[in-house]
Amino acid sequence: MFVQPIPTLRREADTLVILDQTLLPFRSATVALASLEAAADAIRHMQVRGAPLIGATAAFGVALALARGRADDAVLEHALAVLGATRPTAVNLHWALARMADVLRPLSAPARCAAAWAEAEAIRADDAATCDAIGRHGLALIAAIAARRPGPVRLMTHCNAGWLATCGAGTALAPVYAAQAAGIAVEVVVSETRPRNQGLLTAWELRAAGVPHTLIADNAAGLLLMRGEVDLVITGADRVAANGDAANKVGTYLKALAAHAAGVPFYIAAPHSTLDFGCPDGRAIPIEDRGADEVCRIRGLAADATIAELSLAPPATRAANPAFDVTPAALIAGIVTERGIAAPGHLAALYPEQAR
Amino acid sequence: MFVQPIPTLRREADTLVILDQTLLPFRSATVALASLEAAADAIRHMQVRGAPLIGATAAFGVALALARGRADDAVLEHALAVLGATRPTAVNLHWALARMADVLRPLSAPARCAAAWAEAEAIRADDAATCDAIGRHGLALIAAIAARRPGPVRLMTHCNAGWLATCGAGTALAPVYAAQAAGIAVEVVVSETRPRNQGLLTAWELRAAGVPHTLIADNAAGLLLMRGEVDLVITGADRVAANGDAANKVGTYLKALAAHAAGVPFYIAAPHSTLDFGCPDGRAIPIEDRGADEVCRIRGLAADATIAELSLAPPATRAANPAFDVTPAALIAGIVTERGIAAPGHLAALYPEQAR
Repeated sequence: MFVQPIPTLRREADTLVILDQTLLPFRSATVALASLEAAADAIRHMQVRGAPLIGATAAFGVALALARGRADDAVLEHALAVLGATRPTAVNLHWALARMADVLRPLSAPARCAAAWAEAEAIRADDAATCDAIGRHGLALIAAIAARRPGPVRLMTHCNAGWLATCGAGTALAPVYAAQAAGIAVEVVVSETRPRNQGLLTAWELRAAGVPHTLIADNAAGLLLMRGEVDLVITGADRVAANGDAANKVGTYLKALAAHAAGVPFYIAAPHSTLDFGCPDGRAIPIEDRGADEVCRIRGLAADATIAELSLAPPATRAANPAFDVTPAALIAGIVTERGIAAPGHLAALYPEQAR
Repeated sequence: MFVQPIPTLRREADTLVILDQTLLPFRSATVALASLEAAADAIRHMQVRGAPLIGATAAFGVALALARGRADDAVLEHALAVLGATRPTAVNLHWALARMADVLRPLSAPARCAAAWAEAEAIRADDAATCDAIGRHGLALIAAIAARRPGPVRLMTHCNAGWLATCGAGTALAPVYAAQAAGIAVEVVVSETRPRNQGLLTAWELRAAGVPHTLIADNAAGLLLMRGEVDLVITGADRVAANGDAANKVGTYLKALAAHAAGVPFYIAAPHSTLDFGCPDGRAIPIEDRGADEVCRIRGLAADATIAELSLAPPATRAANPAFDVTPAALIAGIVTERGIAAPGHLAALYPEQAR
């Protein structure tokens, strides 16, 4: 079982202690969340991020809401609604809240608080076990490449779908850690992942784990794939539709296109909580638009003061900042789940109870 | 004729005054270059950038070398060699130096200095006229879309191939300025262009020109194209091979793939000085690797001090930083040159004297 070097979240008395990911890779500091509002803000502002971790945080957010006084229906439903509205794309959020609601709604108010902590903790523990299972199944892909030729297996990923994104070993990186444990050499190509630079989280966690890795600008992925410098691509996902279309961090689709053009297999690693059989295909997945600031403010471009030396009339520089994109099932070689690897159109066979 | 708001370069007495593009968009300041070394450094460190502008700067660099004392063969050949080694991918550099060599080698040393200034100035003026012609031909593409449906034409570009990249109106943006002059509404989607952020140069010059534009992370290009939010893509190029494969700023290939998948036409805009008929296809184009610093140092990731809170053993974070990629001819709808628009495999028909 993979042990996180620092827990991404853990209960401490009636608080939830999270690793604040907005400070990484420069500083690793924890924050204690003590209220529903604090948990919702932590999700909204990406102090916790990564689809599985968002789900677990939301579950603990319900417990935090119920731990502060009354635990009646109004408080419960308010918590579910507030947390459910924090971020739109990762379906794990709604999956975790539905699981909490199923357990808590039938209970009397006095029984709910303890049950909420217990269920949130179960979600956390399930996620850790799920990550380990994804790692075991994904390891087979890496081992097959290692068996074919000498030298390290070169795996490309995008964003961060490592331990930082989950309560366990990660999704896309779980097979990397499994390979490391099995003595198979892996090198990881890490894309920066603008505009939020989650690739730096991946570089940080790979460095801490002693896994060789190379950081690239997102733009360089196509050339590396074209040149044959990558053996396989694995990313996480925020929502997989019934037909296998997968929403993940914006830029994933470009890597999938380039992998397809180069004949390099592209895999999604995702637990059952990321599968949305209620969503027929990618067009039905809501894509979060985040603020222009993430693209513009860093450079000061949207502020008049910084471009004052020419006499600049309107229009100002606008920005578009979709946080996710959709990779069509046709570009996906397989989806690595905790039950095995499924072709994108055959997820229902692995998860018949969810697909009903 | 397009008039640059600030000349990207101009002769002033025995110096070359350039707009220092490493300070943009935050500050627009000029620098006077007075020696061969200063000109070579300006190209190397990207104070001037953009394939056509690199070529013109190199031409003036030869004049600067000859203006400082002796203009004998050794000085001339040294200047050609030093400038020719500054950057490997943009063939305009070698084209301009070959043109200078052809004029200057047959002359006596005393005649060379004046001839060098005159030929460099001719290269500059030719480039400005070439950009205007590219603008006229590219305008037809924009006008055809505008005639088909109401609303502004939505054009995506990458990096900066505007007036800042040339001695005139630009290459990829020349059609935009021509459309603006013709009263056709155009909106430009500008990708950030990590790691050097030349998209900010494009945003800056479009803002100064009053052209509406939207800045995006490079990663967002695929989703916008998939959603049908772009009518056509035009980028510049640093070298076009005989078969139409085109090297341009890294990330161009990913946009071409996504445009192709979405059925959106992808064009390269390039003058004759960018065409390399001696290069059979994209595999023969040398791709510049720039330093890891451009990817890593900005964020401090490669420095131990910034990730010291975990006990981090090796390996350090490496970086790969190819500055260009190659877009296969099969993804290119056409190449917009000063002589018209050619299908990528049919450039020789437009430039028979170069293709010989």
